[in-house]
Amino acid sequence: MSKNMLIGQSGGPTVAINASLAGAIKRAMKCEQIGEIYGTLNGLEGVLKQNIIDLRKDLRSVEDFQMLQATPAMALGSCRYKLPEAPDEVYKQILETFHHYGIGYFFYIGGNDSMDTVKKLSAYFTSLGEDIKCVGIPKTIDNDLPCTDHTPGFGSAAKYIATSVAEIACDSAVYDVSSVTIVEIMGRNAGWLTAASALARRGDCTAPHLIYLPEVVFDPEAFLQKLQELGKTVKNIIVAVSEGVRLANGEYVASSQSGLTDAFGHRYLAGVGKYLEDLVRERLGCKVRAVELNVLQRSASHLYSGTDIKEANRIGAEAVQYAVNGKTGVMAICKRLSNHPYLIAYDCAEIGQVANLEKKVPVEWIAANGCDITDDLLEYLRPLVLGEAKEFVSDGIPVYFSFDKTPVTIG
Amino acid sequence: MSKNMLIGQSGGPTVAINASLAGAIKRAMKCEQIGEIYGTLNGLEGVLKQNIIDLRKDLRSVEDFQMLQATPAMALGSCRYKLPEAPDEVYKQILETFHHYGIGYFFYIGGNDSMDTVKKLSAYFTSLGEDIKCVGIPKTIDNDLPCTDHTPGFGSAAKYIATSVAEIACDSAVYDVSSVTIVEIMGRNAGWLTAASALARRGDCTAPHLIYLPEVVFDPEAFLQKLQELGKTVKNIIVAVSEGVRLANGEYVASSQSGLTDAFGHRYLAGVGKYLEDLVRERLGCKVRAVELNVLQRSASHLYSGTDIKEANRIGAEAVQYAVNGKTGVMAICKRLSNHPYLIAYDCAEIGQVANLEKKVPVEWIAANGCDITDDLLEYLRPLVLGEAKEFVSDGIPVYFSFDKTPVTIG
Repeated sequence: MSKNMLIGQSGGPTVAINASLAGAIKRAMKCEQIGEIYGTLNGLEGVLKQNIIDLRKDLRSVEDFQMLQATPAMALGSCRYKLPEAPDEVYKQILETFHHYGIGYFFYIGGNDSMDTVKKLSAYFTSLGEDIKCVGIPKTIDNDLPCTDHTPGFGSAAKYIATSVAEIACDSAVYDVSSVTIVEIMGRNAGWLTAASALARRGDCTAPHLIYLPEVVFDPEAFLQKLQELGKTVKNIIVAVSEGVRLANGEYVASSQSGLTDAFGHRYLAGVGKYLEDLVRERLGCKVRAVELNVLQRSASHLYSGTDIKEANRIGAEAVQYAVNGKTGVMAICKRLSNHPYLIAYDCAEIGQVANLEKKVPVEWIAANGCDITDDLLEYLRPLVLGEAKEFVSDGIPVYFSFDKTPVTIG
Repeated sequence: MSKNMLIGQSGGPTVAINASLAGAIKRAMKCEQIGEIYGTLNGLEGVLKQNIIDLRKDLRSVEDFQMLQATPAMALGSCRYKLPEAPDEVYKQILETFHHYGIGYFFYIGGNDSMDTVKKLSAYFTSLGEDIKCVGIPKTIDNDLPCTDHTPGFGSAAKYIATSVAEIACDSAVYDVSSVTIVEIMGRNAGWLTAASALARRGDCTAPHLIYLPEVVFDPEAFLQKLQELGKTVKNIIVAVSEGVRLANGEYVASSQSGLTDAFGHRYLAGVGKYLEDLVRERLGCKVRAVELNVLQRSASHLYSGTDIKEANRIGAEAVQYAVNGKTGVMAICKRLSNHPYLIAYDCAEIGQVANLEKKVPVEWIAANGCDITDDLLEYLRPLVLGEAKEFVSDGIPVYFSFDKTPVTIG
């Protein structure tokens, strides 16, 4: 007898999260074990409010699926809801809702925090003897989930970052004047995204010239000295810096708590890019500008990586297969078999090995000087940005997929 | 007898300026009146330093031309050099250099300031009876040059802005929380670029909900009131604001001179987006974020408008033709013949009607409420962003054209 499936999205937006949704729905449509295919709006919040929609209704053609997977951010909306440690009334309410909708398969697409939800719900259902399979589908631009070679969403963000840094490098070099351009990149604790800026180095482009990951303690004085050294040979220096770089005392460089002050003695409240811009201007007196890539690095679907979207789609499908095969309390993952040719295989990992844990850039992939990455990391990154976007454009501007958000009513 | 040609680029970067360069060179190669084809590095600075290169050398195939025109910023570099009002030693030096290199045709690709150079040099040469034709080729993302329907570079920037606003709108709507997102857009005195954000309104996308052009006095209190009204019906408000909006007293909203202070009584030094973000947070207490599109709006060649690149190429070619036909002291322009179908014709305008003058968004194209644009302006904008980029990508990351910068030596 078939059971219904429920899928939700959680955490921060990415370009690839809807591709995993599309992949999961498509595979589910082919599974005789799965009856209705429901989506919860704004993740767990939708479960608690019974904002649950029928996902088949709006997906009637191959084109609908393709458009969904080229749409940025979350077609189902997101939340940052954290379940309490011990089962309580909320858990009970979730179980009742699952019973009400006949849910036997639950999928949650998200990052570290979302996997915490999968972990808690699967343990809860198992402890009660409930036959509800819970499977996590990884998604985060930060690429900081353990067990999986990389996470859907990262490759597209990496491509956006490298492309933008290459364009910024062209932009910075037009005048016959020395300059420093600081590009602030997301990734508070893990430097994968900042490292991806190194992919901009192609042909005549030598940018970025300095790369500062949050894994390495940031020393403002050493940074200024490095700029002065580099300035002897490089006219237009491009610096890629993670928003999360910290001082030796463990505080964020850009934090209001850092103790660093501007010329007026005011504490810094802006981002690290702006802070370093002012520092360089004041101390070195050269032309300097900060560029914050901001939310576009996670939502610029017009520049998605074809590889990323294909893999995100597949990992969503695989997750459905694991659940149907009886797995619960796991997250779908990918393993890299080789770089040349680029080959990956899909598998799943125990959710306890993933939830709430972070995978940082390993020390051996960071250059000895602390402000660059190694060739091994470049090799790791290269295949993830391959393949160009096939977006849906009408009159020159992208158009996106959206679901009818009318909740289904049961019984 | 043929004479040599010299071409230079000046002012701020755009995505389309190399397309005009490519178009001019290609046409010049077919003109028997033109001998050598030289480029000056960093505009007038290259003339003064005799940093002049042979442009034919590196352009040997159709692919070379295509790659050049898909490369952002300036392949020849730029400058912000302003000639003195009255001819002096610098003018003399320029003339001597032109004689030395046998220049009979001079082309300068740029905006208002660059056209000032064309005006002064053409008048100087004419006054001396020198047979050196000087023709301007328009280029500016700001679209603020008079006489021409629009300027090369604007359509691509408009496409980048509209696409980014659409993506930011998706990104802003993922959580079940009301929010305000402020997108700061270039264009200090003319609101064309900020107006282009309205092209994001397609399908379910209603963003941007408020559009503030520099042509309209900005009233912070009216802005806050507008947000409160809108908040009753729109959950995630997107505001497009020009970096150049000014208060009733004529001062920039974001200026350190504006008298506006933060919570600590400090004068504001950051951009208008950041200022409005803090204002909204303090006064309305809602979730708010500012995104500055920054230099990418003028250098994101991966998202260029096909129409823009085609027209930029053509206007470069037309400029060469005007010079060869004997024109001097003119700028190549385009005139719009119709919107449906979109048809333009090329012509030239007296340089005195262009140099140092600015074309702002006409009052009749601004909505009566002062924070939106009219359908007529949308009609004007629509054709300019049509056509997708055909960039040169290798391993998923763009590669750019660059000239060998070794100066030619004469005699």
